[in-house]
Amino acid sequence: MSEQLVQRLLNELTKLALVDPHTHINPHAPASKTLADIMGYHYYTELAHSAGMPKSQIEEPGLDPKTKVGRLVESLVHLDNTVQVGWLVELCRKFFGFSDDRITPANWEALYDRAAAKMAEPDWEDQCLKQSGIERVFLTNDFDDPLTGFDLKRYIPCLRTDDLVFHFSNPTVRQRLAKATGIEATSPDKIRQAIGKLFEHFVRHGVKACAISLPPSFSPRRPAKSEDLAQHFNAAFIDADTVPGEISSHRRLGQEFVFWTIAEFCAEYKLPFDLMIGVNRRVYPNGVFQGQDLFDQRVSLIQYKDLFNAFPQVTFPVSVLAQVSNQELVSYSWIFPNVVTNAHWWYSNIPAFIELDTRARLQAVPRNKQIGYYSDMYKLEFAWPKFNMYRECLSRVLAQDFVIARKWSEDEALLLGRQILRGNVESIFKV
Amino acid sequence: MSEQLVQRLLNELTKLALVDPHTHINPHAPASKTLADIMGYHYYTELAHSAGMPKSQIEEPGLDPKTKVGRLVESLVHLDNTVQVGWLVELCRKFFGFSDDRITPANWEALYDRAAAKMAEPDWEDQCLKQSGIERVFLTNDFDDPLTGFDLKRYIPCLRTDDLVFHFSNPTVRQRLAKATGIEATSPDKIRQAIGKLFEHFVRHGVKACAISLPPSFSPRRPAKSEDLAQHFNAAFIDADTVPGEISSHRRLGQEFVFWTIAEFCAEYKLPFDLMIGVNRRVYPNGVFQGQDLFDQRVSLIQYKDLFNAFPQVTFPVSVLAQVSNQELVSYSWIFPNVVTNAHWWYSNIPAFIELDTRARLQAVPRNKQIGYYSDMYKLEFAWPKFNMYRECLSRVLAQDFVIARKWSEDEALLLGRQILRGNVESIFKV
Amino acid sequence: MSEQLVQRLLNELTKLALVDPHTHINPHAPASKTLADIMGYHYYTELAHSAGMPKSQIEEPGLDPKTKVGRLVESLVHLDNTVQVGWLVELCRKFFGFSDDRITPANWEALYDRAAAKMAEPDWEDQCLKQSGIERVFLTNDFDDPLTGFDLKRYIPCLRTDDLVFHFSNPTVRQRLAKATGIEATSPDKIRQAIGKLFEHFVRHGVKACAISLPPSFSPRRPAKSEDLAQHFNAAFIDADTVPGEISSHRRLGQEFVFWTIAEFCAEYKLPFDLMIGVNRRVYPNGVFQGQDLFDQRVSLIQYKDLFNAFPQVTFPVSVLAQVSNQELVSYSWIFPNVVTNAHWWYSNIPAFIELDTRARLQAVPRNKQIGYYSDMYKLEFAWPKFNMYRECLSRVLAQDFVIARKWSEDEALLLGRQILRGNVESIFKV
Repeated sequence: MSEQLVQRLLNELTKLALVDPHTHINPHAPASKTLADIMGYHYYTELAHSAGMPKSQIEEPGLDPKTKVGRLVESLVHLDNTVQVGWLVELCRKFFGFSDDRITPANWEALYDRAAAKMAEPDWEDQCLKQSGIERVFLTNDFDDPLTGFDLKRYIPCLRTDDLVFHFSNPTVRQRLAKATGIEATSPDKIRQAIGKLFEHFVRHGVKACAISLPPSFSPRRPAKSEDLAQHFNAAFIDADTVPGEISSHRRLGQEFVFWTIAEFCAEYKLPFDLMIGVNRRVYPNGVFQGQDLFDQRVSLIQYKDLFNAFPQVTFPVSVLAQVSNQELVSYSWIFPNVVTNAHWWYSNIPAFIELDTRARLQAVPRNKQIGYYSDMYKLEFAWPKFNMYRECLSRVLAQDFVIARKWSEDEALLLGRQILRGNVESIFKV
Repeated sequence: MSEQLVQRLLNELTKLALVDPHTHINPHAPASKTLADIMGYHYYTELAHSAGMPKSQIEEPGLDPKTKVGRLVESLVHLDNTVQVGWLVELCRKFFGFSDDRITPANWEALYDRAAAKMAEPDWEDQCLKQSGIERVFLTNDFDDPLTGFDLKRYIPCLRTDDLVFHFSNPTVRQRLAKATGIEATSPDKIRQAIGKLFEHFVRHGVKACAISLPPSFSPRRPAKSEDLAQHFNAAFIDADTVPGEISSHRRLGQEFVFWTIAEFCAEYKLPFDLMIGVNRRVYPNGVFQGQDLFDQRVSLIQYKDLFNAFPQVTFPVSVLAQVSNQELVSYSWIFPNVVTNAHWWYSNIPAFIELDTRARLQAVPRNKQIGYYSDMYKLEFAWPKFNMYRECLSRVLAQDFVIARKWSEDEALLLGRQILRGNVESIFKV
Repeated sequence: MSEQLVQRLLNELTKLALVDPHTHINPHAPASKTLADIMGYHYYTELAHSAGMPKSQIEEPGLDPKTKVGRLVESLVHLDNTVQVGWLVELCRKFFGFSDDRITPANWEALYDRAAAKMAEPDWEDQCLKQSGIERVFLTNDFDDPLTGFDLKRYIPCLRTDDLVFHFSNPTVRQRLAKATGIEATSPDKIRQAIGKLFEHFVRHGVKACAISLPPSFSPRRPAKSEDLAQHFNAAFIDADTVPGEISSHRRLGQEFVFWTIAEFCAEYKLPFDLMIGVNRRVYPNGVFQGQDLFDQRVSLIQYKDLFNAFPQVTFPVSVLAQVSNQELVSYSWIFPNVVTNAHWWYSNIPAFIELDTRARLQAVPRNKQIGYYSDMYKLEFAWPKFNMYRECLSRVLAQDFVIARKWSEDEALLLGRQILRGNVESIFKV
C-alpha cells in the first residue's frame, strides 16, 4: 500500500476540527499544569508499575510533581515501545518544543520546566484545544454534578450512571442522590422520581448523552413491577454485598431496575445512552489508582437483546472492551437501527486492534452509524496524540479498502472519513 | 505487497468455472426479474432499515417493485461504504451496463429499466450463469421438496434439516413430514423411518449434501435409547415450548435424537453433513424479513466433539458464524479427518474477516480439506460479485503468504487457489 | 511495506544466538537420527491423518523408519500449504543439502539417505545447535527425572507439573512421587512435603522454571485448609474419576491444592511458573499419538485473578492456546507486574496469528515483559525453521509498526527485537 496515499489522506483528515464525544475532562481544570498531570495518567503509572516500579514509589503520599515525573521517567526505558508512551512523546513534541525521540533521565528536566512554563500561560486551555483541532468536549459527570461554573458550549454534560446502577447499596451514593434531588429513595417509585429529577437537571444544562460502564456479567432485563421490588426493597437496594464480588439475585434485580429506569428516561428525553460493555473492576486491587481493572472476554451483546428491543427510540452508542466483541458490535449495529458503534475503548485502543475493528466496521455498518473515536482523556493535552493515532489507522483503512480495493476517489474516501470523525458525532448526539 | 501480483493471480482465478456449494436459489425462479428481486435481498432491506428507514416503508403490503427500489435507493447514501452495496454496484456494472460508481436517486430509474429489459431476455438465466462462471449450483431444499421440474444437472439438491431438528414440535412440520413420507411420526422409531424415507427420496434425486444451521447453545449428544425417548414422547417431540426461546430438557433430547438420526443417515448414504454453527434466530423480532437473526460469540466446536468422534465416516463441512470461531475451525479441521472448513458465512462474509480466516486456513489446514467459498445467494446475479470478493481476498493471501513469503511460483499458488475454489468442492461433495 | 526493510531486519536478527525457553528435548537424545524422527513429529502424523491417511498406516507396530517416512511423504501433496511442512522443507534445505521446493515420492529417498548420513556424524548435535544459533535449551522434565547424565549448562531443567496436579489420582503417579521423594503422599501435608522434595532436587540441578499446561475449565483458588482437605482425602486425591472427562468437586479441590502448593514453592525458590492455558486433552481419542488434543476458546485469564494476586513475587510467563485469548494476555501483562507474555503456542503458532499477537504485544506490553518465542520442539532440528518463522513475523511487525509508522531507526527496532528474542529470556528466567 502506498504510504504516500495514507499520508495524503491523513493530512486532509487532520485539518478537520472535532467534537470529542467522550472524555473524563474536569471542566474546572481541563488542562495540565505540569508534566506530572500528564504522566500521572493511569496509562503511565500502571505501565511503570507493571514494568517493575513499586506502587509505593509512584503513589508516595506528598510526592511533589517534579520528583514523581523523575521517577516515572526511569521506567520509560521499559515502555518506549508502547503506543501510550508514543502519545506522551508526541504531545511533548507538539506542545512543548520537545525535539528528541525519547524522554530519558538525561533530558526530562528541561522538558519538565519548558512544559510547566507553557502550561502556565493563561490561555493554555484555549491554545491546546486550538492546536489540537478540538472544538467541543463531552464530559463524564457524576449524577450529582451541579453543572455550573464552566462553559457549557465548550464542555458538554454527559450523565454518568455507574454509581446509581452498581453502587446504589453504598450509603454515600444514596445520600448524594437525596442531596441532589431532595428525594429520599425509599421505594422503587421514589428511586424513579429521584432519577427523573437528575435527568431534568441535566437536560436543563444541555446534557447530550447518558453513559455507563458495565461488567461482562450484566444482562439487563425488563424489571419486575415496582410493587414486587418494593417487597424486597432492602435486599434489592440497600443491603451491602455479603460476598465481595458476588451479587445476590435480589441485588441484581435492583440493578436491573435502576438501569431500566435510566433507559426509560433516555427515551423520554431523547438522549443517547452510551453503553461501555465489558469491564471487571478491581481485578488487581493492589494496582495503582485506576490501574486495577481488567476484563473477561466471555461476554456477548445477546445479553442486551431485551434492551435493544424494548427501546427502539433510544440510540445506544456501544463501546466494547474486548476486541473479540467487535464482530458482534458490527453485526448488532448492522441489524438494530438503534445500535451504533462507538470508538475504540481502553484495552482495545491500540492500532493493532483499531485497524482490525475499523476495517470491519467500515465494510459492514451503515456509514451514518459509526462514531469513529473519542479520546477518553482526563487532560486536554491527550486529544491530539490519541485522535492522531486513530486518524492514522483510519487513513490506512480508507487507503487500502476504499481507494485501492474499491477504487474510490480520495475525495470520496475523505468524505467517509470526515463523517466517521465528526459528522456522526453531530447527528447522533445532536450537537 | 505488489498490487500487480495480486491482480495477476486474480485474473487467472477468475477464469475458472465454479460449482457453488451452498445457495438458496429457487430452481424454478433462479434469476431476478427486476432490481426489486435484487435489492429485496435481506442485506439491503436490513441495512436500509438499520440506517433509518422504517420497516413499514420497506415491507408495505402491495408495494410495487419499482417503488420499492426507489425507496431503498434513498438509503444507499448511508450504505455505500458497505461491501454488500459494493456487490450491488458491481453486478449492475457487470450485467446491466451501469457505468456510474453509485446508485442514486438521480440514476436508478434508468438502471431499473435497463436491468428489467435485460432480465426479460428468455435466456437470462443461462447468460447470467455463463458470465458469472458458474456451472452448477447447490440448492437448499425443504425436506418435503418434490425435487421435480428443474434441471438436476445444473441445480444440485441439498437436504436442509433445520425444520426437522428444531421445529418438530410445530404441527405443520409434522404434517409436512407425514405428507411427504406417508408415515405418521408417532414414536422415535417412526420418526427414524420417516427421515429414512426423506433420504431415499433425496438420494434418488441426486442429493449431494445434507445441511443444517445451529444455534450457539446446541451440543449434539448420542441420544438415549428409543424406548426411553418413547416414554416422554410428547415432551420430547410434540409439546410446544412453554417459555419462548427456552428449550425444555426433554425437548432438547428430542432435538438431539432427530439430529443424530440425520447424521446416521448421512453415514448410511455417504452424504456430507454441512454444519452452519452459531446463529440465534429472531434476536430482533421487529426487524425486516430475514433481518432478525444474530449470534452469541460464546460457542465452541468442543460442543461437537461427540459427533465428530461418533461419525468418522461422515464428512462435516463446517461454517462458523462468529469470526472468533475460525481458529477453532482451523484447529479441528487440522486434527479431525472428517472436519473440513466451509467458506465464510453471513456476518463473517466481509473482506476484513475473510482475509484473516483465509490466511489461517491456508497456513494450517490440509489443502484438500478447505472449501473456499459459497455464495449463499437467493438469486443468481449475486454469484459474480460475491465470488469476486472472495477471489480478491484469496489472491491477496496467495500473493503475500505464498508467492512473497514462501517463494512459491505463481503457478503453484494458482494450483492451490483453484483447488480451494473448485477442486475440493468436487472431491468433498463428489460432484 | 518495503520487503527490503523486512529482510534487512531479519538478517540482523538471525545473527543473534538464542536461548530456547521451552522445548520437549530429550537431553539424552536431543537430535534426530533419521527423517523418521523428524517426520514423526506429531504435526506431520496428525496432518497426514487429517488429510486422509489411516492411523493404522502411520502407527503400524514395528514399522521401520524408512517405510514410515515413505508413507508420510505420500501425504505431503495435501499438506505442502501448511507452515508445518514449510518448516520441514526449510530444515531439509538448511541441514541436509536438499535443493528442491517440495519433498515428493520422487525425491524423498535420496533425501532420507543424505539426512541419515549427516545425522550419523558424531558431532551432529553440536553442528545442529551451532547452525541454528541456539546456545541453551530449556527442557520439560517429568517431576521424577533424575536430571543426570546430560550437560546441565546446555540443557536447562524445567519442572513440569501436569501429572502432579491433574493425574494425582493415577496410582502410577503417586508411586513415582513416592519413589522420587521417599515420601508416601497420604495426607495434604505429606503431599506438600513430597513436592518440596521435588523442588529441592530440581533446584540442586539448576532448574530455571516450573511449568504446567491447563484445561480451559481450570480456575485456581486458594485451597481449603489442609485439615479440611484431609477429611475428604480419598475423594480429593485418590479416587479415580467416575465419569470420564468430568471432575468431582472434591477432586477439583485436590487439584487446586496441588497447584497452589506448587505456586508456593515457586515463590519460595524464586522460580517463574510457566502457565500454558487452554488445552483440552483427548478430544479426538482415535487420533494419532499427540494428535488428539484441542481446545475451547471460552476461557478467560480472569480465572487466574486469585493466583496472580496471591503470588506477586512469582513471575508467570503465560502462553495461551486460543488466539482470541491474546488480548486478555496483553492486558493482564500490561496491568499485573508478575504476568509476562510467553511466545505463541501450538494452535496459535502460525504466522497469521503470530503477526496479530506480536503487533498487539509490542504496542501495549512493557518491552521487558515479553518472551518472544520458544520452539516447543522435540528434536533440535526444529529450532531453526520455527525461530525463523517467528523472526520473519517479528521483522515484519518491527518494520511496519516501528520503523515506518513510528519512525524508529532500524537500530532501535533491532534492539527491541533482540530484547524480545533473547534479552528477556535471560532476565526473566535468570539464565
